[in-house]
Amino acid sequence: MLEKIDLEKKMTKEDFKEKMEVLEIKAGKLQRECREAGIPIMIIFEGFRAAGKGNLINQLIRPLDPRGFQVFTTVPTKEDELHPYFWRFFTKTPPKGRIHLFDESWYQGLLSKTPVVSYDEVNQFEKQFTDDGNVIIKLFLCISKKEQKKRLEALEKEKASKWRVSKEDWKENKAYEEWLSAYDNMIVHTDTPYAPWTVVEAMNREYASCKILSTLISYMETALAKKKEGKVCEEPVNDFEPEGFDNGVLAGVELDKVLTREEYKEKRKNLQKRLSVLHNKIYKKRVPVVLAFEGWDAGGKGGAIKRLTECLDPRGYEVVPVASPNDIEKAHHYLWRFWERMPKAGHITIFDRTWYGRVLVERIEGFASKAEWKRAYKEINDMEEHLAKSGCIVLKFWMHIDKDEQEKRFTLRQETPEKQWKITEEDWRNRAKWDDYEKAVDEMVLRTSTDYAPWIIVEANDKLYARFKVLETVVEKLEEVLL
Amino acid sequence: MLEKIDLEKKMTKEDFKEKMEVLEIKAGKLQRECREAGIPIMIIFEGFRAAGKGNLINQLIRPLDPRGFQVFTTVPTKEDELHPYFWRFFTKTPPKGRIHLFDESWYQGLLSKTPVVSYDEVNQFEKQFTDDGNVIIKLFLCISKKEQKKRLEALEKEKASKWRVSKEDWKENKAYEEWLSAYDNMIVHTDTPYAPWTVVEAMNREYASCKILSTLISYMETALAKKKEGKVCEEPVNDFEPEGFDNGVLAGVELDKVLTREEYKEKRKNLQKRLSVLHNKIYKKRVPVVLAFEGWDAGGKGGAIKRLTECLDPRGYEVVPVASPNDIEKAHHYLWRFWERMPKAGHITIFDRTWYGRVLVERIEGFASKAEWKRAYKEINDMEEHLAKSGCIVLKFWMHIDKDEQEKRFTLRQETPEKQWKITEEDWRNRAKWDDYEKAVDEMVLRTSTDYAPWIIVEANDKLYARFKVLETVVEKLEEVLL
Repeated sequence: MLEKIDLEKKMTKEDFKEKMEVLEIKAGKLQRECREAGIPIMIIFEGFRAAGKGNLINQLIRPLDPRGFQVFTTVPTKEDELHPYFWRFFTKTPPKGRIHLFDESWYQGLLSKTPVVSYDEVNQFEKQFTDDGNVIIKLFLCISKKEQKKRLEALEKEKASKWRVSKEDWKENKAYEEWLSAYDNMIVHTDTPYAPWTVVEAMNREYASCKILSTLISYMETALAKKKEGKVCEEPVNDFEPEGFDNGVLAGVELDKVLTREEYKEKRKNLQKRLSVLHNKIYKKRVPVVLAFEGWDAGGKGGAIKRLTECLDPRGYEVVPVASPNDIEKAHHYLWRFWERMPKAGHITIFDRTWYGRVLVERIEGFASKAEWKRAYKEINDMEEHLAKSGCIVLKFWMHIDKDEQEKRFTLRQETPEKQWKITEEDWRNRAKWDDYEKAVDEMVLRTSTDYAPWIIVEANDKLYARFKVLETVVEKLEEVLL
Repeated sequence: MLEKIDLEKKMTKEDFKEKMEVLEIKAGKLQRECREAGIPIMIIFEGFRAAGKGNLINQLIRPLDPRGFQVFTTVPTKEDELHPYFWRFFTKTPPKGRIHLFDESWYQGLLSKTPVVSYDEVNQFEKQFTDDGNVIIKLFLCISKKEQKKRLEALEKEKASKWRVSKEDWKENKAYEEWLSAYDNMIVHTDTPYAPWTVVEAMNREYASCKILSTLISYMETALAKKKEGKVCEEPVNDFEPEGFDNGVLAGVELDKVLTREEYKEKRKNLQKRLSVLHNKIYKKRVPVVLAFEGWDAGGKGGAIKRLTECLDPRGYEVVPVASPNDIEKAHHYLWRFWERMPKAGHITIFDRTWYGRVLVERIEGFASKAEWKRAYKEINDMEEHLAKSGCIVLKFWMHIDKDEQEKRFTLRQETPEKQWKITEEDWRNRAKWDDYEKAVDEMVLRTSTDYAPWIIVEANDKLYARFKVLETVVEKLEEVLL
């Protein structure tokens, strides 16, 4: 792609001034409209070294309201390095109505000698955002070998800018042709209909500035027009499971497993001791751990989590209770608030309810459209695979009780004053939708049970057995990896 | 996914008979409706050995009109093996209104010890068909280790069926757990919203039969309902290039290159000699070669092709002239007719006009929707990469002349009786859209110029120079690979 580009595009200063005046007014107006319309925009800048990213970003943001955008650079922080690669980007994605600019981006992960992500992962990463209504503008700034050399020399000549030229810059210039080919490959494999590349001829700054601002304007206009049409065009979804032929996971679970208090005490003591040792190892070996809990209301999530945390060092774990998203969370992609809380290396995060809300409550209550929850299976699998690939241990527990047991527990809660806070009208409403939930759980467990992030169905009619099974599973899985 | 499935689903014979009677009538009726509606359907059967694929396929097709479906097995023919992996499948995809059943499919390419395709390639392969209106039903037949063993033993016991059990069958049974995990991984990574998997519990044949037929019915009903709604929901497309900032490829091409007849003769002689030698090598080394020609009307494609073929052994090459698709071709995916003609190993195919019609004439005349031609860039890149990965040399030529030169040639054609057949009203109509075409060519060359399948812009105002450049490029590229 790149070698075909005629780089010698120019614009006179007068022409530039005249055009920019018009464009800047337009851009400011469109930014306000996009904010009102709640359109999130990501603009990423990639390109040759010394192509002028910094300058062009500055030029671009000039006409924008500073309360509406933010610029991010990719020099990774310590915190970034303790998380999976996409963490640093996912957590920086814009909420509705804002513009986030990236001075280099996730594409750096493709360009390093040992790529940390694949083309496919990058495409999927972007797709989940465009599916969610984001506009992604990908700019590649291109200059010639000669021009790059000229600019590096000019920078080196000035005392004030000498420090800005690195060995890496010169290396790229020497191996310009190889870099051109590497960039080209990157572009070709990630040039998708939903997030295409725009190659910007950056030899002449006026031309480049003007083209970038015009591109942003064109994107904003299109996005606004689509929004006004109200044509939310979703990927077609196929209905595949005829009535009466579900694969049925929960139906096959035998719920009669029990433990006596003595058995439980003994086992617990032993397991908690082992877990305590393991927690140290987790920290020393810098392994992140995610323990995700879902289950029927009154299924015993809280109790199981408590038995886990009793023997953990509080500095090394966090319990994240998940309720309905707040306004800030709602303004982001539904996975954003979970990415935010993912453990750093050496830490455990326990989620009391999880991102699976998307395919459970959001599916059943209609908070997510069919297209949205159907594609969530793959989005979630992708996220968990990314965590697992970065060394994270991911275990997911479904606390399973039957309908009768739930009724018993609900009634007990209602009749016991100190437990009354645990039961609400909503619990009863959810209970009335038991069959819908069972279907959703079946499909969820099937479509997201993976080697790298397995679901464990916990037979939880007997609380002691359930707590034991959770403890045992965690200990055994951790020992498998750590010992 | 698979390990969570409760395999012990059953159906009594009576129940089965009763249900099937109703389902079969329904299926027959829906098949007719789908044929009328022009919906193409692919049903693929994957699963454990001895899961009963053959039987279940037979059971499924019983109620169908045999003029409307076809069954394919994947034992590759000699012809298949001489082509890139997807060739054998692409060429067997159904035209509008027909059902093609695959007894094992492209997933075999994922399951071999050294996979010949990636998850991503498989997903893209399927997506281009669902994007094009195909229904893809993917069935995975699952049985337990014990059941598989029982079936293999039963088959071996009978003289008539003994031959059907192979070493590979027993190997799979011995390593059942590993296969389960391999199948599981395959399913998880290819379980997409547009082509999800249906896992069929195949321990009980009645249950499995009934579930499969019900699944087909459910897919057909959904597809028909969508068709009736007329809701063709296409992937959103982003407009990225603001007016006046095209990357402009053609504008930068210098058309003043010429050759005297003497120079040309000498060069041609030398190049044709080398090409003749290379053609032998191509055959011996079993390298397939694709030479694709596009260009302005009267740009000199024919002449350039003639100078190439003059020195080729006619048994080793084919020239494919491409016109508007005929009815059969129109009933398929637009790439189908080109896949059909792709060269086998050791052969050269020269296309006089190509699949790029999708982003040229079909774009400009509105035969393809914007979403269709926009996604074609990636579809075409994927196809060409697949060819290249299989060892194919792919070169693409754009025969470039300017507007004045075209007018001269048109006029000459009109005034020369023996050339009059070469010029039609349509040529003049196309010429009137020169600017639109130029824009489309610019974008095409940019978005589909790749390392593995480069575009060569041929400066063709001078016919001799153009012929020389084509010859020289072909010879040099072939020598690069073959010598």
